[in-house]
Amino acid sequence: MKDLTESKISSKKIYSGDLLKVRKDKVSLPNGSTSTREYIRHPGAVVILPLLKNWEILLIRQFRYPVGCIEVEIPAGKIDRGEKPVDAVNRELEEETGYRSSKITLLQEIHPCIGYSDERMWLYLAEDLVEGEIGGDEDEFIESIPTTLDNALKMIYNGKITDVKAITGLFWADKLRRKEWEIPKEQKS
Amino acid sequence: MKDLTESKISSKKIYSGDLLKVRKDKVSLPNGSTSTREYIRHPGAVVILPLLKNWEILLIRQFRYPVGCIEVEIPAGKIDRGEKPVDAVNRELEEETGYRSSKITLLQEIHPCIGYSDERMWLYLAEDLVEGEIGGDEDEFIESIPTTLDNALKMIYNGKITDVKAITGLFWADKLRRKEWEIPKEQKS
Repeated sequence: MKDLTESKISSKKIYSGDLLKVRKDKVSLPNGSTSTREYIRHPGAVVILPLLKNWEILLIRQFRYPVGCIEVEIPAGKIDRGEKPVDAVNRELEEETGYRSSKITLLQEIHPCIGYSDERMWLYLAEDLVEGEIGGDEDEFIESIPTTLDNALKMIYNGKITDVKAITGLFWADKLRRKEWEIPKEQKS
Repeated sequence: MKDLTESKISSKKIYSGDLLKVRKDKVSLPNGSTSTREYIRHPGAVVILPLLKNWEILLIRQFRYPVGCIEVEIPAGKIDRGEKPVDAVNRELEEETGYRSSKITLLQEIHPCIGYSDERMWLYLAEDLVEGEIGGDEDEFIESIPTTLDNALKMIYNGKITDVKAITGLFWADKLRRKEWEIPKEQKS
């Protein structure tokens, strides 16, 4: 295997906005030369695959300003400073859908944007859903759409679902229903 | 269905780096109040699912500085200004793996980072692969790893593949091999 690793020479914060923090690092490449890497710092996020009865998935619809369209997604949100991912799961699930879960299992860590962001997302399965008390972020407008897994998979194929975290979650649901993959037994985080 | 749409009131370029361009827009929310949206402008990218014989996939390994690890991915890259996506597919495929394809089909548009980037990715299937002449970006260090689809799927399940574009491409490969999804006949772009 080739040596592919790049190492940091220096790092600078070059922009700090309300939401986005940008850094620019000088790095040493595998061949000894140097280059720069510009990227977003992100606190990390949880993504939730909410499983209702009979393989229905609780999808959501939300306008996503950067891409200028309503996206069909699964619930997700940034982890607050000091918050445990598992607590973020129930907080975001309730804010976005009104449900809480008493059975939360980590399925996988995913990286949505490795070219220019350090964001990590932890994908959780949420089962045994019960209605909670909807809170709701004041500038989020979200609609829940419970959907059969078959219909959700069709929405990927038809180009109606383009959001990668939803695609990843639904891939897991498809594999779990087929019993080709199992729900991990040990919690990884 | 609720009205979920946000509309632009004003838009400002607030940071323009070598790679990252950041905008901050003032928007009007569905309830009439206003908020701000900070996001990255991105030129769009192609993602390539390179299919070898007998359901082998040409995966690649590459160090990804923002996440600080070697990622197992499928080839991808930004579309150059004025370049057709189909031309970007063969350019990136050859730069990253040394192969060219004479049979390229658009599978799906995906959105990797809808919270804070306008990036769109077009996922293409590349078949009939033949060796070309490796070019290679001077600061990319990439290793090709031809892998059976079964092994690649296992790498998702085991957490060895965390890159969402690779996960989406391999999901398509799994569905195509099962003949549950078909390769789209008409080119959508």
